[in-house]
Amino acid sequence: MSSVRQVNIAIIGAGGVGKCFLSQLVALAQRRPSPKLVLCYISTSKKAVFSDDYSAIGIDNALSALASSSQTPLALSNLVTYLAASGSKTVLVDNTSSTDIADAYPSFLKSGISIVTPNKKAFSGSYKLWQDIFGASAQSGARVFHESSVGAGLPVISTLKDLVETGDEVTKIEGVFSGTMSFLFNSFAPTSGSGGKWSAEVKKAKELGYTEPDPRDDLNGLDVARKLTILARLAGLEVESPTAFPVQSLIPKELESVSSGDEFLEKLPEFDSQMEETKVTAEKEGKVVRFVGSIDVAAKQVKVGLEKFDRSHPIAALKGSDNIISFYTKRYGSNPLIIQGAGAGGEVTAMGVTSDLLKVLAQLS
Amino acid sequence: MSSVRQVNIAIIGAGGVGKCFLSQLVALAQRRPSPKLVLCYISTSKKAVFSDDYSAIGIDNALSALASSSQTPLALSNLVTYLAASGSKTVLVDNTSSTDIADAYPSFLKSGISIVTPNKKAFSGSYKLWQDIFGASAQSGARVFHESSVGAGLPVISTLKDLVETGDEVTKIEGVFSGTMSFLFNSFAPTSGSGGKWSAEVKKAKELGYTEPDPRDDLNGLDVARKLTILARLAGLEVESPTAFPVQSLIPKELESVSSGDEFLEKLPEFDSQMEETKVTAEKEGKVVRFVGSIDVAAKQVKVGLEKFDRSHPIAALKGSDNIISFYTKRYGSNPLIIQGAGAGGEVTAMGVTSDLLKVLAQLS
Repeated sequence: MSSVRQVNIAIIGAGGVGKCFLSQLVALAQRRPSPKLVLCYISTSKKAVFSDDYSAIGIDNALSALASSSQTPLALSNLVTYLAASGSKTVLVDNTSSTDIADAYPSFLKSGISIVTPNKKAFSGSYKLWQDIFGASAQSGARVFHESSVGAGLPVISTLKDLVETGDEVTKIEGVFSGTMSFLFNSFAPTSGSGGKWSAEVKKAKELGYTEPDPRDDLNGLDVARKLTILARLAGLEVESPTAFPVQSLIPKELESVSSGDEFLEKLPEFDSQMEETKVTAEKEGKVVRFVGSIDVAAKQVKVGLEKFDRSHPIAALKGSDNIISFYTKRYGSNPLIIQGAGAGGEVTAMGVTSDLLKVLAQLS
Repeated sequence: MSSVRQVNIAIIGAGGVGKCFLSQLVALAQRRPSPKLVLCYISTSKKAVFSDDYSAIGIDNALSALASSSQTPLALSNLVTYLAASGSKTVLVDNTSSTDIADAYPSFLKSGISIVTPNKKAFSGSYKLWQDIFGASAQSGARVFHESSVGAGLPVISTLKDLVETGDEVTKIEGVFSGTMSFLFNSFAPTSGSGGKWSAEVKKAKELGYTEPDPRDDLNGLDVARKLTILARLAGLEVESPTAFPVQSLIPKELESVSSGDEFLEKLPEFDSQMEETKVTAEKEGKVVRFVGSIDVAAKQVKVGLEKFDRSHPIAALKGSDNIISFYTKRYGSNPLIIQGAGAGGEVTAMGVTSDLLKVLAQLS
């Protein structure tokens, strides 16, 4: 096999995931001298570091170089041109959740630049963007991997791809796809004991850093809907967008338009009776309520919302903020293939990105 | 990226897994026209089909070609020579559990022939063979993948490799690694209800086809010890062999040397009290007994045997003949990354082999 000596890396984003990825990249470059990884571009939304000879940045001091840089990020079209002209195999690592960058993936891929990313936007946007991305990849041979777009570092996307590509028939996918929702419901409706009031659990989750700054960004269900869109498409369904199927929002109608997350939290207790009723109804059946996503592949039905589960069901027995994903397939029969564990957090999300990078490197060399 | 037009495939073994793999290969070749997959050799222990022009065998009628063939298998050293001279990239698919073939892996790999296999022998034999295999692979660039050697098609090995290669620190691996043992203990000591007598459960498992022809080949724990050896080595421990750590055999001493599996089953009821006592002791603590393997990476301790678990523990709650594997790591913290599902059976084992083949194809092209 021919051996690639050098691979250029361009990184966009240096937030929570970006910082963890950088430290994993430093360790990776130390452990694996070949191919040589050259950081040729790094940017945040405001700053960037790059140079005409593509080699100005030491991976281990990239953050300080960024901090002291006076360069601004290249426009995305210029970034494509800059990277395509480097003369080396190049991988773009998009550690943002930017829609603009996602929209530019087809341009990068057409120019032979491979992409690894945890960014859900590209794969859960319009179906046309999805087709453009994988069409451009097939045409140029540039790779695109996005393991961390669902379940962070858990091997969810690679497993689903393996099932599909080896010819198994995936009949149903079901699970808890949000660490926030997992934490909320494991506390609110535990399998033993009674749990707290809904509004108190939301408040606690926010204080512990398990929610977005405005908890409504978790409670609207859109994050889960985006993940379901990605999995449904990988399973062969042409889902048009994450709003093309039923998604239950846990935001009371009356609080949808209050001005801030704080005001939302303040008024949420007035609506506790709704969630309490849902919990009690489930309890009377010996069940617990959970916020799940499911894909019925044969019926082409995707949905996100509250469901009741027996206390002994693996989805009910989940702990902390863990995700669980069950794949029901023809080969696996009545007992699904289950993957479970932390589905959020900087380190595990970055791990998915790093392992995707390793896959690209193995395929480039 | 350069594109490989043709990849030669050589298959050894056409038993349960081999037949399932062949049918998956037929479907794969139909779905993916490129690279062209050419079956240039197929053999059982007694027969073979191959030709000087490497292209005599249609994948879809390989079994009938085998049945009507008068050729005998090439000696392994001759097979290496035959495959190395083909002029195309070549993948050997070893669907046997043969130690002789495993011992020849370094020769194949040195000659640039990649290997995919569910055969545990190569990776759980002597540590020297392990080193020879991966040394030969590193030297020639030929790939070697063996996902199905642990947990069949479940993504166990790929996940452990991802954890290690991205720099996570695996602290402990624990699980139920045998479909037979899973079935036996889920029936013998269920989380609710009382289960049957031990000897009756073993008899039932054999009648249902869940055990080897002689159930002692499951009950001696060696199959689990082999899988633990593979995982421990991937986690960085230099385990010398599957007999280099404590493995609890469930065969009563007195029945170790009886002449047949049938005689074993006939006399097993005399020893039911031992297992019954183990079960009752666990029950008194509110627990159930399970046959598990565990690797404590920091303490460099590997062991296989009976352990007690709370009824709510995921290992206790396992169903049917499912496997469960928990990875405890620094990044994942107190809640492990868990993979669960069928860990035996022709179709799911072949699936692991087919997905390994797809990985090799992606890296060759």
